[in-house]
Amino acid sequence: MINKELTEPRSIVIIGGSNNVQKPGGKIIRNLLSGNFPGNLYVVNPKETEVQGVPCFHSIEELPDVDLAILAIPAPVCNKAVEQLASGKNTRAFIIISAGFSEETPEGARYEKQILDTVNKYGASLIGPNCIGLMNLYHRSVFTLPIPELSPQGVDMVSSSGATAVYIMESAVGKGLRFNSVWSVGNAPQIGVEDVLEYLDRTFDPEHSPRIKMLYIENIKDPDRLLLHASSLIRKGCKIAAIKSGSSESGSRAASSHTGAMASSDLAVEALFRKAGIVRCFSREDLVTVACVFTLKEVTGRNFAIVTHAGGPAVMLTDALSKGGLQVPEIKGERTVELKKKLYPGASVTNPIDILATGTPEHLEAAIDFCERECPEIDAIAVIFGSPGLVKMYDAYEVLHRKMEECTKPIFPILPSVVTAGKEVSFFLKKGHVNFSDEVELATAVSRVCNASKPSNEGIELYGVDVPHIRKIIDGIDENGYLSHDYIQELLWSAGIPVVPEFVSGQREEVLAEAKKMGFPIVAKVVGPIHKTDVGGVVLNIRSEHHLEIEFDRMIKLPEVTGIMIQPMLAGKELFVGAKYEDRFGHVILCGLGGIFVEILRDVASGLAPLSTGEALSMIRSLRAYKMFRGVRGEAPIDEVQFAEIIVRLSTLLRFATEIKEMDINPLLATEKGIIAVDARIRIEK
Amino acid sequence: MINKELTEPRSIVIIGGSNNVQKPGGKIIRNLLSGNFPGNLYVVNPKETEVQGVPCFHSIEELPDVDLAILAIPAPVCNKAVEQLASGKNTRAFIIISAGFSEETPEGARYEKQILDTVNKYGASLIGPNCIGLMNLYHRSVFTLPIPELSPQGVDMVSSSGATAVYIMESAVGKGLRFNSVWSVGNAPQIGVEDVLEYLDRTFDPEHSPRIKMLYIENIKDPDRLLLHASSLIRKGCKIAAIKSGSSESGSRAASSHTGAMASSDLAVEALFRKAGIVRCFSREDLVTVACVFTLKEVTGRNFAIVTHAGGPAVMLTDALSKGGLQVPEIKGERTVELKKKLYPGASVTNPIDILATGTPEHLEAAIDFCERECPEIDAIAVIFGSPGLVKMYDAYEVLHRKMEECTKPIFPILPSVVTAGKEVSFFLKKGHVNFSDEVELATAVSRVCNASKPSNEGIELYGVDVPHIRKIIDGIDENGYLSHDYIQELLWSAGIPVVPEFVSGQREEVLAEAKKMGFPIVAKVVGPIHKTDVGGVVLNIRSEHHLEIEFDRMIKLPEVTGIMIQPMLAGKELFVGAKYEDRFGHVILCGLGGIFVEILRDVASGLAPLSTGEALSMIRSLRAYKMFRGVRGEAPIDEVQFAEIIVRLSTLLRFATEIKEMDINPLLATEKGIIAVDARIRIEK
Repeated sequence: MINKELTEPRSIVIIGGSNNVQKPGGKIIRNLLSGNFPGNLYVVNPKETEVQGVPCFHSIEELPDVDLAILAIPAPVCNKAVEQLASGKNTRAFIIISAGFSEETPEGARYEKQILDTVNKYGASLIGPNCIGLMNLYHRSVFTLPIPELSPQGVDMVSSSGATAVYIMESAVGKGLRFNSVWSVGNAPQIGVEDVLEYLDRTFDPEHSPRIKMLYIENIKDPDRLLLHASSLIRKGCKIAAIKSGSSESGSRAASSHTGAMASSDLAVEALFRKAGIVRCFSREDLVTVACVFTLKEVTGRNFAIVTHAGGPAVMLTDALSKGGLQVPEIKGERTVELKKKLYPGASVTNPIDILATGTPEHLEAAIDFCERECPEIDAIAVIFGSPGLVKMYDAYEVLHRKMEECTKPIFPILPSVVTAGKEVSFFLKKGHVNFSDEVELATAVSRVCNASKPSNEGIELYGVDVPHIRKIIDGIDENGYLSHDYIQELLWSAGIPVVPEFVSGQREEVLAEAKKMGFPIVAKVVGPIHKTDVGGVVLNIRSEHHLEIEFDRMIKLPEVTGIMIQPMLAGKELFVGAKYEDRFGHVILCGLGGIFVEILRDVASGLAPLSTGEALSMIRSLRAYKMFRGVRGEAPIDEVQFAEIIVRLSTLLRFATEIKEMDINPLLATEKGIIAVDARIRIEK
Repeated sequence: MINKELTEPRSIVIIGGSNNVQKPGGKIIRNLLSGNFPGNLYVVNPKETEVQGVPCFHSIEELPDVDLAILAIPAPVCNKAVEQLASGKNTRAFIIISAGFSEETPEGARYEKQILDTVNKYGASLIGPNCIGLMNLYHRSVFTLPIPELSPQGVDMVSSSGATAVYIMESAVGKGLRFNSVWSVGNAPQIGVEDVLEYLDRTFDPEHSPRIKMLYIENIKDPDRLLLHASSLIRKGCKIAAIKSGSSESGSRAASSHTGAMASSDLAVEALFRKAGIVRCFSREDLVTVACVFTLKEVTGRNFAIVTHAGGPAVMLTDALSKGGLQVPEIKGERTVELKKKLYPGASVTNPIDILATGTPEHLEAAIDFCERECPEIDAIAVIFGSPGLVKMYDAYEVLHRKMEECTKPIFPILPSVVTAGKEVSFFLKKGHVNFSDEVELATAVSRVCNASKPSNEGIELYGVDVPHIRKIIDGIDENGYLSHDYIQELLWSAGIPVVPEFVSGQREEVLAEAKKMGFPIVAKVVGPIHKTDVGGVVLNIRSEHHLEIEFDRMIKLPEVTGIMIQPMLAGKELFVGAKYEDRFGHVILCGLGGIFVEILRDVASGLAPLSTGEALSMIRSLRAYKMFRGVRGEAPIDEVQFAEIIVRLSTLLRFATEIKEMDINPLLATEKGIIAVDARIRIEK
């Protein structure tokens, strides 16, 4: 529903505009004026004839036609104003900054619903209520400060929380991050985070659209749409960083008391972001730092060179990059001799390259050129240059600026003297750069970016999954609840998931013959009684024909027994795969090593169905205990590709059987002959 | 060797002082002058008669007597100047800011050694070379900027790296952190980090000394002294935060190329900090934020209330506190009704307490008072208040200031609008406060502080450890290397560590009788041959007398066999305890669950010998797999107290047998009858 009247209005009216710049209705006019809004600006205020130099009307009736209306009036009178504007003044876009709606009271929720109905009736767009507004290159319809530097290559930010958007900008200004647009969606009855993302996706222009998006989300209302448009944008070359807050139990209570957001399981969010290729962040600083990393050339490998004039920060940076799985490899060989000649005695050239506190801009240039030209193993360069008070900072920052333009490798500027060399840092930022004032924050952000997943491909892997048969089974089930053994077996078979073979018969000879085929040891269970174990109806580890004969004869005589089931007795390493249907997200698939790894260490990876083999492998490889797959302490290795295949098949099964709300395969055993499901639990709800 | 001439000199001379404030020798004079140094100031420079208004002499000979000399002249000529000053001008303190010493070349190292000998000869003190200098309330003998606000209640900072000290101050200035003294120790041939800490400890005055210390360390030269004085200071009421950089393998290479620091194992550092009660930090931002937390009242529990006028940051703060093991409990009951009446409709009072963007200073006051007075379950209050542009910030910050003085509970101010409300935030900081501009950074720091250990008591737990016997065994061993089985058994027994019983005999009847006493199953091993397994000399799981008879008869006939050893065959959960002697640190004890937990998951805790039971328990409880001790999947629980006791006994053993460079007990089995060592490996080096 986002239209041109909202993004590029020819005219704007502020209903409740004020001369008092302490009030939102005054501040928003001040921001529009300071932003040189190029269209017509009007105010409606019964008490004034001019507000901050802008023509003011006493009522809506007196207004000419106007594209966009910003409402800064009490909640109860908003809907009437919207109706008047839409019907009488051809207004097709609304920004309501007022609070007092669904976030506060049931009565407020009714006002909000009325407004939604009105704007929808007229096909108009609505931002808010309960927001700071919308700001882009065209108009600054927000009532808050700061106004960051706006630029067509800047970041598009979308935020559920107005104040958070403001505080993110506070942090961004100091780091030099620029914005293309800022969307504060407030209660979002019409336009929410997903809608803005969809708009950015649909209007994406490979030549002119900016590439970086920052999201602050408290509630993912429509995960499918978020996934669709986020991954589509990323495939088009965009980069997205996002905070989804409310990840802890208390945090999710805090979020829900705040916006009425429904708590979505954090594993589901994790899975969604992984699938979309979104870089997940957990604080404002973190989000802004990741977005700053996005502004630089992409890091295509894992090897960093550090060029510094101070030892300490280089050591901390090296530690932090290593912790994030990145490397600061030693630079060796003949080539270092040449570099060493160009620097002061005592300079270190092995990486970190320490040009010393007295190192000159020329030394800085030589060191960067060395990394760029002589070190093919180096993928990225971090430069630490503060104010040692010993060289001309402007010259050094000019070199840095030039090298950042020239070099093919990304260069990360770490300029820590933000107070003492504040002017020089500003001079550097004004050339269009960002600054990372703390080297460890940079390392954390850059490793987050380097370790993020690519968006998954959209196809569903159907090979070997018998969808019509799965549907037939599911459609044939009448009752909700846990499925019986037979249904489970059939569903697993239909999905192509290997299940331990079994044979049921009431005939002793048939059972014996089959057992010989299966090979001992075997397990025997009675068929018929519900509580098999209670009646002595389960015998494990039967090792001979003779033993089976004895047990068969005993078991077949137990009450209610209609037959005896036999299975091979398997031994192997326990694996775990399970799934839960999360409201709005669909099935979240969890995998891990079984037993204590899941139950005690909570070492599980999550993914969103349907999964590709690549995604399943990346889930498996993200487990803390991944090394166990290689086989430890004399155990055989576990076939991760087969495990991935089972995860994929399970996810495909679930995609076509959304009635399954919960299931897990347990135990899933990695035996010598492969990975086999021994038992499973499936709960359906139609 | 720190003396009054260094800390409170009556007179200072700058050798190589300059009119050019781009040079260190010029900058340092500027800083001394702007700091209004109260004593006599002189310069020695052959080319000038006055430097920046300070009397200048052409040579050292012409100088009057002077307490402290700051050298800003080339490395090769420093020693001569030191000798002249010490012998001729009674100078007893030196700060050498020049570089070009041991950090650069072997020749520089010789200069450094000469200077050290000279100052030691005269009983003088020496800071540097290769440092930025020393700054305290009395004199600002540093050549760098920024100069932070200095205050007798400020932080004492000691740094191995001058530039890092500068960049830490850059970050501190913005957060409002004040300093009492800043020590940049440079190459530290005489005064290092440990010496400054010792000085601060010995001169500690409970009434007047400041309480907060920040350390940046690249090389712990004397871990014992660091431990002694850090824990002593903490016991006297101080708080210490420290970065030890070089924690990764590449980082430690980076550190060693920088200062020639020897890499100390990161586990040893971890253990040392834990034992001392030092809060470990990993970045400058982190260090400064923790120090800011230290300036506030102590948090005595784990329950936080959040008072905010913006939802988003409160949610992120709640998430981050939870992640750090702290809580934001729901506030319930009748009492909330009263608070709700005082706030605007729509305000939330359940914690986070959201007074809304329009919330007034009076609302802020009401909410803080409520947490202070009506909520005994609340231990600390975090207040988020930026610039919503809707209330008078000065008034709100005045309320916050007053409440921070009045309330008994610590209040953490989170003022995010550092750009827009820069003036108001400065006004608040000027009243002596700090500011946390990012709520998640605060949460990380405050949980680090709340989760830090207390300094351990100094005693050694000797009970049941037979030290004379241990010494007798160790003294009796002639060769270095791995000890034989008998020595190991005796050492473990002497330390009171339970060892699996064993019995050796060549007599069939004796072995059979003893086996019956031990109870089957048992293990039998040949005594004599070195490679027992290769000759079929080990049989596990012997379950009957009959079986043992057969095996005895077979094994006793094997070549070189002198007897048969039997042990009960134990079953239980594997534990791990081991130790390594780290140069300078002493024994680092490691513990964990055995098997994959140590080998694959690297889930080990470290402690420094000797350990108390409390420390050992805290190590065990810090394991990721600690839950396993409660008994899972039907396994019996593991007796953590007995495990702790074994760890303590091992640490006591090692304290009296420093010749042991490496040992581990493996397997250490938690059986039904208690925890028992089955085998161990001990390597000695005399």
